[in-house]
Amino acid sequence: MSDNFAATRVRALSVRDIRFPTSLENTCPSEQHPDPDYSCAYVTLFTDTDLRGHGLCFTLGRGTELVVSAVKSLARLVVGRPLSKLLYGNMRATWHSLVSESQLRWVGPEKGVVHLAVGAVVNALWDLWARLERVPLWKLLVDMDPQVLVSTIDFTYITDALTEQEALQMLQQMQEGKQERENFMLKNGYPAYTTAAGWIEYSDEKIRTKCEQFLARGWRHFKLKVGLDLQRDKERCRLVRDIIGFCRPLWIEEPTSPDDILGHATIADALRPLGIGVATGEACQNRVVFKQLLQAKAIDFCQIDACRVGGVSEVLAIYLMAKKFNVPVCPHAGGVGLCQMVQHLQMWDYVSLTGTTKNRVIEYVPHLEEHFKTQINVTNCRYFPPKIPGYSVEMWAKSLQDYEYPAGPAWKKLYAEGKFPDPAMEKCPLVERPIERISKR
Amino acid sequence: MSDNFAATRVRALSVRDIRFPTSLENTCPSEQHPDPDYSCAYVTLFTDTDLRGHGLCFTLGRGTELVVSAVKSLARLVVGRPLSKLLYGNMRATWHSLVSESQLRWVGPEKGVVHLAVGAVVNALWDLWARLERVPLWKLLVDMDPQVLVSTIDFTYITDALTEQEALQMLQQMQEGKQERENFMLKNGYPAYTTAAGWIEYSDEKIRTKCEQFLARGWRHFKLKVGLDLQRDKERCRLVRDIIGFCRPLWIEEPTSPDDILGHATIADALRPLGIGVATGEACQNRVVFKQLLQAKAIDFCQIDACRVGGVSEVLAIYLMAKKFNVPVCPHAGGVGLCQMVQHLQMWDYVSLTGTTKNRVIEYVPHLEEHFKTQINVTNCRYFPPKIPGYSVEMWAKSLQDYEYPAGPAWKKLYAEGKFPDPAMEKCPLVERPIERISKR
Repeated sequence: MSDNFAATRVRALSVRDIRFPTSLENTCPSEQHPDPDYSCAYVTLFTDTDLRGHGLCFTLGRGTELVVSAVKSLARLVVGRPLSKLLYGNMRATWHSLVSESQLRWVGPEKGVVHLAVGAVVNALWDLWARLERVPLWKLLVDMDPQVLVSTIDFTYITDALTEQEALQMLQQMQEGKQERENFMLKNGYPAYTTAAGWIEYSDEKIRTKCEQFLARGWRHFKLKVGLDLQRDKERCRLVRDIIGFCRPLWIEEPTSPDDILGHATIADALRPLGIGVATGEACQNRVVFKQLLQAKAIDFCQIDACRVGGVSEVLAIYLMAKKFNVPVCPHAGGVGLCQMVQHLQMWDYVSLTGTTKNRVIEYVPHLEEHFKTQINVTNCRYFPPKIPGYSVEMWAKSLQDYEYPAGPAWKKLYAEGKFPDPAMEKCPLVERPIERISKR
Repeated sequence: MSDNFAATRVRALSVRDIRFPTSLENTCPSEQHPDPDYSCAYVTLFTDTDLRGHGLCFTLGRGTELVVSAVKSLARLVVGRPLSKLLYGNMRATWHSLVSESQLRWVGPEKGVVHLAVGAVVNALWDLWARLERVPLWKLLVDMDPQVLVSTIDFTYITDALTEQEALQMLQQMQEGKQERENFMLKNGYPAYTTAAGWIEYSDEKIRTKCEQFLARGWRHFKLKVGLDLQRDKERCRLVRDIIGFCRPLWIEEPTSPDDILGHATIADALRPLGIGVATGEACQNRVVFKQLLQAKAIDFCQIDACRVGGVSEVLAIYLMAKKFNVPVCPHAGGVGLCQMVQHLQMWDYVSLTGTTKNRVIEYVPHLEEHFKTQINVTNCRYFPPKIPGYSVEMWAKSLQDYEYPAGPAWKKLYAEGKFPDPAMEKCPLVERPIERISKR
């Protein structure tokens, strides 16, 4: 704990609506999201000292303003409070206070807009904590006493699957050999897979070229987007198979509604004899739904998202449950800042929790990386552990300024060029203050 | 269909943040919501003619601004469009477009803030439809051809439990005897239960007095709030039992996380031998979760909420699934406008779907009724069918003006009297535009 810790308070919080005009690039992530503008609600916690914490949650453009507004509503729960009351032994209570705000919880609870906002704030708190200790987040977690680590997790609603005592035991049992595993990671890195060869709008020719390039560079796991049309899906699968030479999909991802636990279980049951797994999680709202996906044997791969659930504290709970149910975690990444975050979590999983990379890969999609101060080190298709203190999501001040929506210079330029409609110039279809006669009661 | 229908368009939409300072009254709905300010996001659709549609979704104060903002983001999907393209045979497509907006859906999908917003807009569309036909909503539904009725429902993600064809057959089978059942309702009304005798902060003395009063007035179903402390809960149960003389709880409500389908199933299993049912639904996010609660035998009573899920169209899907799984619907009411809405749905359930009131009661909590133009008619502990066209949620213009948050006169008075903090005067802890040096890249 650094010297000035006791005296340090969160002095202020800022939250910004940062959007990148990726819909112009025509990189369609799925048939349900044909035209995303990759975005984030970007949170900075300012303290009495130079120390700052940064956190974000990934969004697709419209709707970011809702998360930004929700963060503002949560701000009073962290601003003005000393770090000693927010972090360390108080992290669980801090987290619980954020998800159970007595009025706000009605418009959740623990899901959607308000939970994404919690994720961004909690991630900023963990970034602050790691910076305070002057270590990258994965190292903070790895070196953390198991007792302290489980004390940061709120076990409410999951004790039927995992108690605090069981979590503690799992971590304690893995203390041995930690240093060797850390050295192994520092030397060899963590295996990655690529999503960049199979975007849904790619032509057959482009898929062929991309697959050949990635294969030549050593990649062995490829993601192919499906869902537009069964016949086209089959043709595309055949095309990729012809090039990469593998026989069977490792998993199918989110094959039905992310809310349908029993539906996923039915699909997983049907696919198990074929040796094809079911993966899901990027749209899974919280630890309670992950718990049930595990209990119902509905998933063979657990795809946590670093900021859809309530930040690091809740993600740790999900990793611990996945370990107990013997399901590997392969995190969702890409978007804005997800690769930056999940590498830390997966390093911790290897060193402190599971001790294996078997059946585990981290998604890698290197778009928008240039906006982050800490560069991801993916070499020879492997993620190497970050070395800079924090959670790796601090963005360049110039990127924040340029891409703040709707008035950042990059956006103004797009309006001027006619590439995007200027929201200020839109003929607003709302009547915000309808003029009405006040009727007699 | 009225004559000027073809030409009519939705000209504009207004949405207002309406809050009532109920936290000052100390009527605590549950231990998780100790100090709610009962509120709503209130939507009005304006057309080319005098015709308007009103819809709302119930909230608890903070967070209403998020739903209001989400409604504004959805407005472009309905404003400017002719009613012929929004309603009737196009209702399913309209609903689907609202829940699958390609960027907004990421911060849901179909849950929390964005789904509450969909509920308010969809309820306003149904109100408009009923007014167009000059009938109350329950009568619109009752007289609707079964084929048209099922065409308003989006069956996506529920066909494994209920197909459109099955839904159609269930409705067609109940066509016979409809007129008799409608007459029965008009004459005898629908049984209600009261929540007003057992609020959690009531003293034993107050509970005793209230129970005796309600019992004398003919009430036979009482709700008692629990959850603060097991010993106190037991004492309060004993107290009520001594007065009303009934032996066993009919149900226990939302005994665990609203997201925990399998947890509810475990509790229901354990309680079944005791003859105590499990009820849940007021915080259940959408039809996909209700489907699983039914599939897993996790609920004995289905407590739909008229606006947490996506409005009338989605509520109908849930009623139809409940009928198939033979689970009675006892709607969540109270709040702001919920009693007004659910009475319509429950009348339709009796006349057109199940033909019975066995094990079915409508919650009745008559607070804030005075703000609505259409009065609820509860006589001798029974709801009588509304007679005025629409969905009964139109509020008095004066109420809307007075209680609009944060600048309505009723709120300004409270700030002046020192009863509520004026948000405009709060020392804002946010730094919205942090001044930062732009670092060299």
